[in-house]
Amino acid sequence: MKQRRKAVCLLSGGLDSATCLAVARREGFACYALTFDYGQRHRQELEAARRVAAALGAADHRLMRIDLAAFGGSALTAEIPVPKGRLAAEVAGGIPVTYVPARNTVFLACALAWAETLETGDIFIGVNAVDYSGYPDCRPEYIEAFERMASLATKAAVEGRLRVKIHTPLMRLTKGQIVRLALELDVDLSLTHTCYDPQSDGRPCGACDACLLRRKGFEEAGVADPLERRR
Amino acid sequence: MKQRRKAVCLLSGGLDSATCLAVARREGFACYALTFDYGQRHRQELEAARRVAAALGAADHRLMRIDLAAFGGSALTAEIPVPKGRLAAEVAGGIPVTYVPARNTVFLACALAWAETLETGDIFIGVNAVDYSGYPDCRPEYIEAFERMASLATKAAVEGRLRVKIHTPLMRLTKGQIVRLALELDVDLSLTHTCYDPQSDGRPCGACDACLLRRKGFEEAGVADPLERRR
Repeated sequence: MKQRRKAVCLLSGGLDSATCLAVARREGFACYALTFDYGQRHRQELEAARRVAAALGAADHRLMRIDLAAFGGSALTAEIPVPKGRLAAEVAGGIPVTYVPARNTVFLACALAWAETLETGDIFIGVNAVDYSGYPDCRPEYIEAFERMASLATKAAVEGRLRVKIHTPLMRLTKGQIVRLALELDVDLSLTHTCYDPQSDGRPCGACDACLLRRKGFEEAGVADPLERRR
Repeated sequence: MKQRRKAVCLLSGGLDSATCLAVARREGFACYALTFDYGQRHRQELEAARRVAAALGAADHRLMRIDLAAFGGSALTAEIPVPKGRLAAEVAGGIPVTYVPARNTVFLACALAWAETLETGDIFIGVNAVDYSGYPDCRPEYIEAFERMASLATKAAVEGRLRVKIHTPLMRLTKGQIVRLALELDVDLSLTHTCYDPQSDGRPCGACDACLLRRKGFEEAGVADPLERRR
């Protein structure tokens, strides 16, 4: 039996990362899902990640603890209010306070470490540069620069045994297209968790950036969000 | 009083990182030392890092836990014997088993996160591409690629509020030159720990890669290693 190619898939437990994992599975990869407990206040997403990894048949799922909250600097880890009501980037005219310093760089670096021990160069991340909060580490030029750096960083790549490829299947999709893709791939979106609000009991607050973008996606796709129905 | 510029300094507790920290101090930086408990079996270096940070007057010193050992793949974290006797790269003709997958990428990513919250882009790392074990993530082309990626990754850099600069003052020095630089800068090398052997009681085993390179440095500098005197 031919062994399936392996891929490390970053999985937060939200709509985008769940869909990204489903894309990796459709492409035939054995998926090694990686979730971070980085001190985020909306810890409900950790449980969602476990549910999603199990439902999508991940070959393995690891929860890695990295205390980015110790450094502060973000509304997602520190006692800074999560902006609500309108997309924070539109209000502030820049990168919003929910940005976590260097988060995707830390996540991708750890994914790279795991990938190398799994003897693969394939890493999936559900970043999106269309309907997003304006975080710099979601843009294609950043991902390309990471990929280039990673190809110089690792023994396996330098020795020519593997090629590092950061897959970003959602990069150019609208939120509506992501919802439709998730449904096409039979992702059970009732298992996901998107809301930034630490008070959320699993249901979306409906007002933070993450909820506003999610709602936009379901509206564009013309379907109801199963989490909204649970309200 | 003018505030000193801040720099995050990666500090393992060995000869190179201690010297690198002393260079950052000489250049006038307030030094924020960052040490990783990544599951290394030679845990004595963590205590050495604490001693060095205190002796060199670091403004702050953080110990960050990241479980790279969970991924395996290295003689420094897994139950793989540490090669002894001759430089492993010369014996194996390649990158040795003490290589830890993506280690410097993970360390620099976390340093970047802390730097951004400290509102600085200056990061010091004591990598060296002359007398070294052949790890890919110690070479100048890797460091340049990381710097470029980091400048696209972070809010502060993208908004033009800071410039990411990875300082590698030891990159082009021989081990002998590093020892002489340490002595010039009054680094107490008896506080450092270099040996990879988890059985080491603080004294160098004298046979692993790290010890062989350290000994070469002291021999070239024509001085005795204070750790050897303790044997």
